[in-house]
Amino acid sequence: MLIRAFVPAHITAFFVPVFHNDPLKTGSLGAGINLDKGTNVFASIERGTLERHIHIAFNGEPVKREEAIISYSVAEELTPKNFLGEVEIWQYFDFPNGHGFGNSAGGALGTALALSFAFGGTWLKAAQIAHEAEVTHRGGLGDIMAQLAGGIEVRVKAGGPGVGVTDNLFFEDYRVLVVPLGKLSTKEILDGDVVKAIEVEGRKALGELLKEPKPEKLMVLARAFAEGTGLLGGELLELARELDRVLKLPSSMIMLGKGLFALARKEELKSAMALLADLGVPYDAAEIHEGKPKVGRWVG
Amino acid sequence: MLIRAFVPAHITAFFVPVFHNDPLKTGSLGAGINLDKGTNVFASIERGTLERHIHIAFNGEPVKREEAIISYSVAEELTPKNFLGEVEIWQYFDFPNGHGFGNSAGGALGTALALSFAFGGTWLKAAQIAHEAEVTHRGGLGDIMAQLAGGIEVRVKAGGPGVGVTDNLFFEDYRVLVVPLGKLSTKEILDGDVVKAIEVEGRKALGELLKEPKPEKLMVLARAFAEGTGLLGGELLELARELDRVLKLPSSMIMLGKGLFALARKEELKSAMALLADLGVPYDAAEIHEGKPKVGRWVG
Repeated sequence: MLIRAFVPAHITAFFVPVFHNDPLKTGSLGAGINLDKGTNVFASIERGTLERHIHIAFNGEPVKREEAIISYSVAEELTPKNFLGEVEIWQYFDFPNGHGFGNSAGGALGTALALSFAFGGTWLKAAQIAHEAEVTHRGGLGDIMAQLAGGIEVRVKAGGPGVGVTDNLFFEDYRVLVVPLGKLSTKEILDGDVVKAIEVEGRKALGELLKEPKPEKLMVLARAFAEGTGLLGGELLELARELDRVLKLPSSMIMLGKGLFALARKEELKSAMALLADLGVPYDAAEIHEGKPKVGRWVG
Repeated sequence: MLIRAFVPAHITAFFVPVFHNDPLKTGSLGAGINLDKGTNVFASIERGTLERHIHIAFNGEPVKREEAIISYSVAEELTPKNFLGEVEIWQYFDFPNGHGFGNSAGGALGTALALSFAFGGTWLKAAQIAHEAEVTHRGGLGDIMAQLAGGIEVRVKAGGPGVGVTDNLFFEDYRVLVVPLGKLSTKEILDGDVVKAIEVEGRKALGELLKEPKPEKLMVLARAFAEGTGLLGGELLELARELDRVLKLPSSMIMLGKGLFALARKEELKSAMALLADLGVPYDAAEIHEGKPKVGRWVG
């Protein structure tokens, strides 16, 4: 039996971390965008061996338990204890790991949905298990909620599935341009002094967005957050300013990765991509993924 | 400017009404199925007249305010007070009104989404306004939440958008067969003695479904609820038994309409439809609508 789950890549525009002893009450406030590229998880389930085995691979390469602790803990929890057979989880990522595209949450949620589909669970329980694993192992705080919401999402009440509350903005005709330049450690930033600035700027941005809930306002607020917290500076800020010259809306920083993102109309995208090609930096473009992740039997 | 919103028809399989002074805490527990047929709402917005006018039509025929109080109250709330122009709301229903397909909620939610798209709102606020109108004017308790969830949904915590919690079952390859025979008044049933039986049987069904969250179990529990509450009896029960002979899963009663529904594989659907044609009763079939309602600018 082969199951496929697709979970959109999610870029956070601004956020406020919210911690609690209960992982389901832990999460984030904030806003972000889901892409039609992201994480594809294929779960192959073969019964009839003498032992219960779970294997996980990233982009075709087997990974050790300690390198994929979040997805392994999800798979362990959702594979019945008395199951005898092979569970293989193949995760394929359209964007590089650690660059702020929610790959960790995508892998966890995709694994949870695929195994719940196969072994008899529900959407909500799968999502809660993925969120708990993300929070416990500090993969992220808000990606699972955001990926479940789809589209351009706003996290208006912090918490995991069944506890937190998300909203969605209406939008038309935007593509998302992404410039993934390198990794940033979410853990290090959440442990550092910048957290105070993130809380102040994040709450301010959320309040302003809810007063004028539009994608155009989102980008203005995202940039103010990125600069106001000091997370966006130096060469990355210079590149953002270069991009601004060819785009109508401000670009901003991917939270949290060393990279930029922007909303662009079809005709703007071309000139922005030409500029980035001239500058010799990596870039990609995607549509916005609306609605939930997808899961089903794979027959392709 | 012309906006189109599609909201799936929703059939309730079993339910428990939950009342509260706050409409957002009012709702229902239960489970049901969303169809890929339902309510299409077209909102035409023309600026530049001297007055603010709102008109609503059902299936092409203008309706009076008192005949469409739920949708009128939604449209009044979401059309800015200082708007000068014509707002026309054209609602088209794939199923007859009052037969238990969630048309009232479909019209309210479609109107709320279309006008929020046009005038600058969000998904959550649109859905809350539609839910409040439904509850206040007693159109229904759980349809809006169910229609937002899509697929085969389970309302696990009662309440409106942002308060209640829904879950989804995984499913494969089912079509929905519907037999709409007549109207039932939700108001009258919720005001009658049967409410006590509905509460007992509804909670029992929900508990059982969460232990074995599968579409097959849902249909068994729906039928037990329909018979256990006494809502399904007489000729309608006889017709359900006729259908059972050609279907693998039990059929059940549409809550609340004088009608039946069933989950069927493609190959079963043919013999069930032949039987219903022989009996001379009206029937229709639909796919299951997964994910959220749809809204966007209409260019077709």
